Amino acid sequence: MIVVMDLQVGEKELQAVEEVLQEYGYQCHLIRGENRIVVGAVGSGSGEIPPNLETMPGVEKVMRVMQPFKLVSREFKRDDTVVAAGKLRVGGGFVSVLAGPCAVESEEQLKEAARAVKEAGAVGLRGGAYKPRTSPYSFQGLMEKGLNYLSNIKKETGMAVITEAVNPADIEAVAEVADIVQIGARNMQNYPLLREAGQLRKPVLLKRGLSATVEEWLMAAEYIMSGGNYEVILCERGIRTFETYTRNTLDVSAIALAKRLSHLPVIADPSHAGGQWRLVRPLALASLAAGADGLLIEVHPDPARALCDGPQSLNPKHFSELMSEVAALVPVLGKTLCRGEA
Amino acid sequence: MIVVMDLQVGEKELQAVEEVLQEYGYQCHLIRGENRIVVGAVGSGSGEIPPNLETMPGVEKVMRVMQPFKLVSREFKRDDTVVAAGKLRVGGGFVSVLAGPCAVESEEQLKEAARAVKEAGAVGLRGGAYKPRTSPYSFQGLMEKGLNYLSNIKKETGMAVITEAVNPADIEAVAEVADIVQIGARNMQNYPLLREAGQLRKPVLLKRGLSATVEEWLMAAEYIMSGGNYEVILCERGIRTFETYTRNTLDVSAIALAKRLSHLPVIADPSHAGGQWRLVRPLALASLAAGADGLLIEVHPDPARALCDGPQSLNPKHFSELMSEVAALVPVLGKTLCRGEA
Amino acid sequence: MIVVMDLQVGEKELQAVEEVLQEYGYQCHLIRGENRIVVGAVGSGSGEIPPNLETMPGVEKVMRVMQPFKLVSREFKRDDTVVAAGKLRVGGGFVSVLAGPCAVESEEQLKEAARAVKEAGAVGLRGGAYKPRTSPYSFQGLMEKGLNYLSNIKKETGMAVITEAVNPADIEAVAEVADIVQIGARNMQNYPLLREAGQLRKPVLLKRGLSATVEEWLMAAEYIMSGGNYEVILCERGIRTFETYTRNTLDVSAIALAKRLSHLPVIADPSHAGGQWRLVRPLALASLAAGADGLLIEVHPDPARALCDGPQSLNPKHFSELMSEVAALVPVLGKTLCRGEA
Amino acid sequence: MIVVMDLQVGEKELQAVEEVLQEYGYQCHLIRGENRIVVGAVGSGSGEIPPNLETMPGVEKVMRVMQPFKLVSREFKRDDTVVAAGKLRVGGGFVSVLAGPCAVESEEQLKEAARAVKEAGAVGLRGGAYKPRTSPYSFQGLMEKGLNYLSNIKKETGMAVITEAVNPADIEAVAEVADIVQIGARNMQNYPLLREAGQLRKPVLLKRGLSATVEEWLMAAEYIMSGGNYEVILCERGIRTFETYTRNTLDVSAIALAKRLSHLPVIADPSHAGGQWRLVRPLALASLAAGADGLLIEVHPDPARALCDGPQSLNPKHFSELMSEVAALVPVLGKTLCRGEA
Repeated sequence: MIVVMDLQVGEKELQAVEEVLQEYGYQCHLIRGENRIVVGAVGSGSGEIPPNLETMPGVEKVMRVMQPFKLVSREFKRDDTVVAAGKLRVGGGFVSVLAGPCAVESEEQLKEAARAVKEAGAVGLRGGAYKPRTSPYSFQGLMEKGLNYLSNIKKETGMAVITEAVNPADIEAVAEVADIVQIGARNMQNYPLLREAGQLRKPVLLKRGLSATVEEWLMAAEYIMSGGNYEVILCERGIRTFETYTRNTLDVSAIALAKRLSHLPVIADPSHAGGQWRLVRPLALASLAAGADGLLIEVHPDPARALCDGPQSLNPKHFSELMSEVAALVPVLGKTLCRGEA
Repeated sequence: MIVVMDLQVGEKELQAVEEVLQEYGYQCHLIRGENRIVVGAVGSGSGEIPPNLETMPGVEKVMRVMQPFKLVSREFKRDDTVVAAGKLRVGGGFVSVLAGPCAVESEEQLKEAARAVKEAGAVGLRGGAYKPRTSPYSFQGLMEKGLNYLSNIKKETGMAVITEAVNPADIEAVAEVADIVQIGARNMQNYPLLREAGQLRKPVLLKRGLSATVEEWLMAAEYIMSGGNYEVILCERGIRTFETYTRNTLDVSAIALAKRLSHLPVIADPSHAGGQWRLVRPLALASLAAGADGLLIEVHPDPARALCDGPQSLNPKHFSELMSEVAALVPVLGKTLCRGEA
Repeated sequence: MIVVMDLQVGEKELQAVEEVLQEYGYQCHLIRGENRIVVGAVGSGSGEIPPNLETMPGVEKVMRVMQPFKLVSREFKRDDTVVAAGKLRVGGGFVSVLAGPCAVESEEQLKEAARAVKEAGAVGLRGGAYKPRTSPYSFQGLMEKGLNYLSNIKKETGMAVITEAVNPADIEAVAEVADIVQIGARNMQNYPLLREAGQLRKPVLLKRGLSATVEEWLMAAEYIMSGGNYEVILCERGIRTFETYTRNTLDVSAIALAKRLSHLPVIADPSHAGGQWRLVRPLALASLAAGADGLLIEVHPDPARALCDGPQSLNPKHFSELMSEVAALVPVLGKTLCRGEA
Repeated sequence: MIVVMDLQVGEKELQAVEEVLQEYGYQCHLIRGENRIVVGAVGSGSGEIPPNLETMPGVEKVMRVMQPFKLVSREFKRDDTVVAAGKLRVGGGFVSVLAGPCAVESEEQLKEAARAVKEAGAVGLRGGAYKPRTSPYSFQGLMEKGLNYLSNIKKETGMAVITEAVNPADIEAVAEVADIVQIGARNMQNYPLLREAGQLRKPVLLKRGLSATVEEWLMAAEYIMSGGNYEVILCERGIRTFETYTRNTLDVSAIALAKRLSHLPVIADPSHAGGQWRLVRPLALASLAAGADGLLIEVHPDPARALCDGPQSLNPKHFSELMSEVAALVPVLGKTLCRGEA
């Protein structure tokens, strides 16, 4: 349920409304937008509306949220949420590109990648320290050491760093280094991890599961938001289909739908979606045209030697060419590209 | 197998090559491009290469085609195939928009739709006379009467008309009226129908099946081309996925892949893909950004009263707005939009 | 709508009811069961119930059919439909096995296969004369010649012959030879072919499409029944999934569902479903345990030399072993196995 | 790599072999079967075979494992693994049924369910204390309290208790109560959880992910086994498909394939697969016919009042009827049903 408050409402009136809602078993989430103040009331089993709520001082309107996701829905918050970290902004008309290697392999490899993507205009640096791998015998990431390298490069370049957390026990340590904490596709319904992410006060990027519906994806974001962390970025990274030429199939309608159903920013990962570096360019442009607020792209200084996901990584030259095309496209779509370098 | 010929090769030398290939059980397809003349040899069970073929006069090179599709593949023909009908051109840097109602319902409805889409800049008019419907009790199209209306409107407007054939027995009658004969998604592997389409000397638009892989789609096109009809337009119209908010899921990587693997033009149908008129705009733009050479869009003068697919049809106003965005996007992608009206 | 009539109703009363229904735009289908006589009224756009229908002489009850499929549904006909051809019976507690090669390759190959499967207890002989193949360059079947061989072997062995029709223009010729006409998975929504099948007065086996839902499958059966052909056998042959070890994935819940939602007999094709001969045994037994009324199994005298689907064909020895297990299982499930040989 | 040892090999020779393998970067897993002793060597990046390995004392044969899963594969261990807990045995010809409510709701509900399923012949009791739910606002299980109730009922009934762990931090606490620790479908690729499960010395039941391939499922089991826990039970619980009548689609070929590719026992969960109590019976019988070594079935004393998954739960009467059919079927398949009650 959404309780829309008068913009001039006082603290006492707000508190009174929250108390009544809590009596009825609701958790309250207060959102102060530019144009309205809203109390989101979620999680009561009964779903009952307190009888006098609508007539309490400061209350303008009481609305039920029809969707199963509440805090995540556009019914709850009409304006786009903008998530910012350093020069990076996504949502509300801002587009940013995050790029870097699939896995942090060494300090040198990370530095080389960071410089290249920054020079080409990326504002965020991606790099995995903890890698979820299908085989227990594959390279699992540099872990703590990888986090240290990311921490160093962040100081050096000023880029916003995004890296993945895979274990509820480690997520705080990851959040100390990361500007944006990534939850991977395989963990989209790892509820203990989502709950921990809800306790952070750092942006969380939530990848869509390989076979998740848009509703399930938004419900996963609801787990994070219901913990009080409202800075969630959704990331479409391709779904599993019958196609064998590609690793996954980028779902641009999910981007368009998520933008319509939710106020959260949505970005796309065309590298995992296609699984081939040749597909990154068309899929990146298509994602933006469909409404994406940003891109997450794998770039490796030497893709042929990558320990992970080499075939889908761009080299710095191809990434730089892509950035030129992105820079030409974004204004045609009525949006603004955040640039790292002058 | 592809036999690349000297550009100055004479008819006699060509014939000699074809005779040798036929002796070995091959069918021959001659393609005269601007930069090379090629004999495509397909369909021999043995796959044997005649021993002296490479040394015959006029033969430059003999290459095996690795893909299971032969005439359709870019190995066979490097340059984009451009299919033209009236002012419509798709492929080779040209983009065209075909629009109109899902089904022809009456002469008045068709005229109204045709005028509206022409005015907004469409060069092709779509409209189904034979409608494949899931239920035997649903409206199945006006059939012959629908073809007559299409024939009249074509004379009146000069637009290229596209309409669907569903029965091998009727395809010639359809081709007499249509400038482009459509094969629907459910018939993508209707081989008797594909064989008849291969006998036509009219462009054929081949929709991808709901769960077909890109390879199966290109193999279906190979059925048409192996009959001698080289004017095939591929059309991505969304695949079946687990998503329930949308009717189907537009697969933009299939567009990018088909453009890479084949020389044939590829267009997108964002109306069927999304199943909601609100999704048509983002999906149309995403398709073009992914490399599509055109769009097939459902427009109805009064979507709320459509006998078929109303919820996914644009009204004329929304279509006109979309055309403005398309006109702004296409040049950024380095292509040319074919316009109907000055 | 279903109009349940008094068991003692006279012809005149029946006719009066049908006339009223026809005035309201319905087609009428009369089904005389052992326990009730029913008039099925389908296909009126309005869906209006004639006001005095319920009080007409002979009318016991008027019921709407809630499912989109009408004649096919168990609401329409409560008792199992039993389809019979020679010694073959499927439905109503009877189980039959049809076996034979994927494609008729020669008269000798067909005879050898027929003798082997008959000896092992099959009552039906399968063999394709028209083969729908993904590539235009693959073996497409012996066509008319194949039909002749089937006709000869039928006279010799007395087995019920099942073979596929792929073109509406050929279906009558196929039906002259076949005891059961097969509609393949790729043609499940080939409506002109289904309509022609509805005009036959021969049993039709309708395979489920590779990605069809159970509802779409039953709607395809409705096309056949609405033409007046009530002898339809449904055949589950595996759906497309992400699994790469198997060709398709046998869907046993579809068997159980189809038996619950419809009165039609349902059989399974474990050969196409698994795509590997080693999987035929477990999938065949699982299908029967899930409620299937029969099996369609590929058997080839020499699978290694088959022109089509060799890897999924059983040799005669393995087929004979499977038949022993089937014979042991069927009575435990409370059903009766129809045997060819004494 | 598998090193097959002489059955009479001494400890010193074994140790020498393991030391050489460890020098080359391998982890060693020793499996003593009835007919052979095997050292499994996994996880070396190089994959190099130590040059003199084959000639070392006690070594009979050195074989590479072709599959990406090693310890899990039948190449590694030819005989069926039998997992036992109390009267429960699965694998090696033994079939057991585990039943009980989806979630532990109260001590009374659990007791009632336990008595009913034990009386009907179940040897294992299922009941979730930690419930992964799509919505953060749904009932999430009784957690520690639920574990206590399970611990009490276990003492009372002597049944083997199975319950789910969802967080690596809690898995040891769960394992103190549970005889079999369940890893749910959504956590099939939750690698930190799988690694913790690998440290347990208790049987682990690993459910297949909703869209996982059989290979991915077996790779997840490899994570557990590579930690040294060899008691893994695989559980097929249905995959996501396009079908809307059912919750998921039971994949019986996955059961047959897993039994062929791996030595681990495989059981089926027909309750989650179908999502409807009416489908439990046909799906349970089909699973056993396909080769399953057991069943996991939801039974609730009063399904209409269940807090979770009521529609797919059997009531005690229907469960008891099912057990009679299972008892009749298992011997026909050449296996033995483990019974709780005399």
